[in-house]
Amino acid sequence: MMNVLLLLGCPESPSQTPMANYVSWKLFNMGWDVVVASTPAASKLLEVGDPECQYIKNKVDIESCLDGLNEGDYDLLIGFVPKDAAASYFVTFYHILNSESLAIVFEKDVDVLEDLTNIVKESTDANIVSVKAYHNPTPLKVKFNKALDKLIEKIEK
Amino acid sequence: MMNVLLLLGCPESPSQTPMANYVSWKLFNMGWDVVVASTPAASKLLEVGDPECQYIKNKVDIESCLDGLNEGDYDLLIGFVPKDAAASYFVTFYHILNSESLAIVFEKDVDVLEDLTNIVKESTDANIVSVKAYHNPTPLKVKFNKALDKLIEKIEK
Repeated sequence: MMNVLLLLGCPESPSQTPMANYVSWKLFNMGWDVVVASTPAASKLLEVGDPECQYIKNKVDIESCLDGLNEGDYDLLIGFVPKDAAASYFVTFYHILNSESLAIVFEKDVDVLEDLTNIVKESTDANIVSVKAYHNPTPLKVKFNKALDKLIEKIEK
Repeated sequence: MMNVLLLLGCPESPSQTPMANYVSWKLFNMGWDVVVASTPAASKLLEVGDPECQYIKNKVDIESCLDGLNEGDYDLLIGFVPKDAAASYFVTFYHILNSESLAIVFEKDVDVLEDLTNIVKESTDANIVSVKAYHNPTPLKVKFNKALDKLIEKIEK
C-alpha cells in the first residue's frame, strides 16, 4: 500500500477543491492511503464540499503536518501548485520527505504558469504536470491521470 | 416534499462548487428533491468534485432546463449569483417559475456585490442572501442556513 500526502497550499482556484475530491477518491479506490494537508482556508472549502467525508478521509493542517514531518513518512507527495505560496510549500515538503513526487501546476495566465513551473523545476526533481487551467478541470484531470499512470509504471518496476 | 431547482449560472468562484455539494446534500437529507441546473463549465466542476454522485443526485444543462421550463415546475428556486450572467439566469428563471425563491449573491469586491444584489432586488421579490465572500465558504454557509430556516418557517405557515 502507498501512503500519499496531498498538498493544498492555498485556496483560490475554483478547480482545486473539486480536483482534491477527485484525486483523493481515485487513489483511495486504488487501495492507497491518502492524507490531505491544507491551509485553514483550503480546509474550509474541503469541509463544505465533502460534508460526509466521502472523498477526503484524512485531513491535517499543513503547518502542523510540516512541524512533525520526517523523511520517508509518505511514499508519494502530490501537490497542487496554483500560486507562489503553494510552490514554496511543495518545495519544502519535497526536500523533507525525499519521496516520489508529483506537482500539479495550474494557472490561467501562461506567463505565471511558466514562472510557477520553473520554480518547481529548478528546486526539485519532481514529476511535473503543467496545465493552463482555471475553472475548467478537465485538462487538469486528464493530465493528472496520465501522470499517475506513468508513476504507477515507475513504482511497479 | 419540496422540489428544488438549484441554479449555477457560471463557474468562476472557488466557493461555488463546494457550496453546491453542501446545499444539495443538506436539502436532500431534509427529504427534498433537488435538481441542479448548471452551465457546461460549472457542470464539469460538479462532476470532478463529486465523482460518485454522493451529493448531487440530479443534474441538467441550464439552457435545456430553461427551454422546457413552466410555471410551478419547482416549489423553490435557489440561485448562486457571483456574476452578472448568473444574475440574469436567476431573474429569468424566477419570472418563469413564479415560485418561492432565494438568491445567494456573493463577491469579494463590496461594490460589485452591491451591484449584483441590486440587480436581483430590482428585478424580483426573491429572498436575498448577500455575502462578501470569495474563497472562504463559511459566511456563505452560515447565511444560507439562516435563510433556509426562515424559508422553512414561511413554507410551514
